[in-house]
Amino acid sequence: MNSDKYDIAVIGSGPGGFTAAVRSSQFGARVVLIEKSFMGGTCLNCGCIPTKFLWQALKMKQKIQKSYEYGFKTFLEPIVFADIVAKKDKNISSIRKGMDLVLKSHDVTVVSGAASFKDKNTLRVLNDGNSTNIFADKIIIAVGTDPLIIKNLEFDRVKIIDSTDVLNLQKIPKNMLIIGGGVIGIEMATIFAGFGCHITLAERENKLLPNEDNEISEEIKKNLLRQDVEVLTECTNALDNLDNMDKYEKVLIATGRTPKGDLNLEKANIKITKNGFIETDEFCQTSTSNIYAVGDIAGKTLLAYTAQNEGAIAAENGVKGNSIKIDNSVVPQVVFAMPQSSSVKVSNFLNYKDIIFGKFSLTASSRAFIENERLGFVKCAVDKVTKRPLAFWIIGAHCDELVNTASQILKNGIKLSRETMFHPSFGESLFNAYEDAFGMCTEITRKKVK
Amino acid sequence: MNSDKYDIAVIGSGPGGFTAAVRSSQFGARVVLIEKSFMGGTCLNCGCIPTKFLWQALKMKQKIQKSYEYGFKTFLEPIVFADIVAKKDKNISSIRKGMDLVLKSHDVTVVSGAASFKDKNTLRVLNDGNSTNIFADKIIIAVGTDPLIIKNLEFDRVKIIDSTDVLNLQKIPKNMLIIGGGVIGIEMATIFAGFGCHITLAERENKLLPNEDNEISEEIKKNLLRQDVEVLTECTNALDNLDNMDKYEKVLIATGRTPKGDLNLEKANIKITKNGFIETDEFCQTSTSNIYAVGDIAGKTLLAYTAQNEGAIAAENGVKGNSIKIDNSVVPQVVFAMPQSSSVKVSNFLNYKDIIFGKFSLTASSRAFIENERLGFVKCAVDKVTKRPLAFWIIGAHCDELVNTASQILKNGIKLSRETMFHPSFGESLFNAYEDAFGMCTEITRKKVK
Repeated sequence: MNSDKYDIAVIGSGPGGFTAAVRSSQFGARVVLIEKSFMGGTCLNCGCIPTKFLWQALKMKQKIQKSYEYGFKTFLEPIVFADIVAKKDKNISSIRKGMDLVLKSHDVTVVSGAASFKDKNTLRVLNDGNSTNIFADKIIIAVGTDPLIIKNLEFDRVKIIDSTDVLNLQKIPKNMLIIGGGVIGIEMATIFAGFGCHITLAERENKLLPNEDNEISEEIKKNLLRQDVEVLTECTNALDNLDNMDKYEKVLIATGRTPKGDLNLEKANIKITKNGFIETDEFCQTSTSNIYAVGDIAGKTLLAYTAQNEGAIAAENGVKGNSIKIDNSVVPQVVFAMPQSSSVKVSNFLNYKDIIFGKFSLTASSRAFIENERLGFVKCAVDKVTKRPLAFWIIGAHCDELVNTASQILKNGIKLSRETMFHPSFGESLFNAYEDAFGMCTEITRKKVK
Repeated sequence: MNSDKYDIAVIGSGPGGFTAAVRSSQFGARVVLIEKSFMGGTCLNCGCIPTKFLWQALKMKQKIQKSYEYGFKTFLEPIVFADIVAKKDKNISSIRKGMDLVLKSHDVTVVSGAASFKDKNTLRVLNDGNSTNIFADKIIIAVGTDPLIIKNLEFDRVKIIDSTDVLNLQKIPKNMLIIGGGVIGIEMATIFAGFGCHITLAERENKLLPNEDNEISEEIKKNLLRQDVEVLTECTNALDNLDNMDKYEKVLIATGRTPKGDLNLEKANIKITKNGFIETDEFCQTSTSNIYAVGDIAGKTLLAYTAQNEGAIAAENGVKGNSIKIDNSVVPQVVFAMPQSSSVKVSNFLNYKDIIFGKFSLTASSRAFIENERLGFVKCAVDKVTKRPLAFWIIGAHCDELVNTASQILKNGIKLSRETMFHPSFGESLFNAYEDAFGMCTEITRKKVK
């Protein structure tokens, strides 16, 4: 049995763990990063990146098919889905190689294997039957989550599949039932419907994205219907109510994520929540003071970028002592429907009582004309008293970039100003929506009733 | 002779004048907007919009040609440039109709004709030989600029052309000499080279975009060379030194813009600068107190969005008395090269003495992988003492949107935070460049020498 001693051991190489490892090294720590599967975790291998690649391929297909709007005559040969998937895998592999280089340049030791706690400073790492002990002063847990299994319905990986399986399908099924109308369900419905699969999307609540603004939720539904997706809501028990599972070639379960287990957390006295996530405070510290947990496994926001943020915070606190805290007062969210949808609001949004709303349709954006992307709008909530913007909801091309602009505005309570926004851009729609809240947008027709 | 009396008369319907007219109406004024040519001014008819449309068409062509990166097999028939131009004109015409509707809904009276001053409250408007007098309490001048003529070289509109003529060419010339390596020259070189014209781009100074950061200027040059553009710098007298004008099918003069004349400004005692621009103060007010001037004719920044801003300011000050001032402390700039380039810095940038720089290449961005847009970088200048970002220079896809995010950051002295930036987006590159200024970017290899 080999053993090794580190300042910081990080378990899991997704956005949270990767960032934690590199940042710890930047602060001078001797770091080991333990990964039991592929470098990059869920985000790179079976989450954000492959999903966005397939979405981008769909977008490209649609762009080609509408290129006559620029006077072009284009012919697209019948699409071979396996060819797209191969390109996706090639891209993932390139990004993974880049990550390896970054880790190497930061002198992070990478160990393959499944880690579990022996005590609060010792990890046992199993790899191909070989066991190694790793000792570390501080440990950062970033193991992530797995797709949630529905009771009595095991994944058979052929017909009953999860969000990882679906990303590796080599051909487009004739039809597919997707259970779960959250972000993952909507994104897969969009992509696979776009490539010709007949999709039935079943959501338990009375609308898609149950926690999202109604107008956004409705608009996403409308755009899915435009793609011939069958949208079922209030499927309180999707499996019982849906008459016949036989008629579906595939059934994708996308009802949520569940914490990865097998860490022997009890050996280090690490407390978990009733849903199995690791309890952490604002320093990302667990109930055991030398151990931190970041990203999905800490169950706060389940987003790659907040995981990265938490990874950096845990690294700094781990190396230098607790000094910086999580600030999730402004965190954007994006859904890759077609077109994309995004939203961001201040975390104390509900405290504001006197809110006015502005809206700007992309049909009035000259840049949207130029790009032939006129579907969508920006909606803005503003505190009437201070004129401070409180939230933006954005549907349409580039809204996944615009939402970053919106985030900066909200985070800092900025009143928007015209000269800071390039024309013609999509981004200036944020300004126009903001001005509309006061009935002062100069780019749209006057509302006769305010 | 007819006559009419208004609270506000606006001369010119470009971004400045259009905004001034609508905003004046929103404040309750009785408004007339006088336009001697097409609604929308330079920006819509022979500036930003047609340029960006042609650029977008080129982008589409390149996207189609690279669609094999998504596993597609695509055939693009030989491009007929006149078809693109027809689509451009169709889009411009649609946007123009939208502007008409906005003006109508705001009860702005639109008068066709060329306005000139009779006195400080009276304009004479000539249209097809008919003359009308318009009386207004306040007048906002927004007549814009024309392309600058080079001494001894008149535009013949066939071989020697300006930026308006070039946008209406019905076919791609075999070759073209472009005199002037500023924004317009670079954009036209990019577009026409992209569609197969052999371009010679001649700049008087020792680099393209003489006022821009060297690294950006060099990168733009490199990308033009990649497009087979011949780039000549230090052409102190382009016309003498360039051996033989005969060899060029077209010569585009893009050396600058000059104020439009013929307003009889002296009748209203309006002072002009030595270059012929109208003198205005921070309220957009001219030397004659009831008269304001906005946009290009006021010669401040010659940008559509600052013109819009000034239009809104002049309208508010005109209707309600001087109360708001121009604040050009943060104004982004964009050049539609291929890829685009943008920059924004705080106006007092030169006052900072202890500046550190960060850089993030798009080759390290996973979103850039997904979109197959890995050319470019973000460079960030940060005040070492306060850690406040002071400038961003961005080359690459979507930088015309990212620069809006950068502007919000600069305008408000924000230190960037990871969780406010969606992953995977291009926008998060701003964060990565910022972190690199401190040697703390977690997404790139460690620099061995800092």
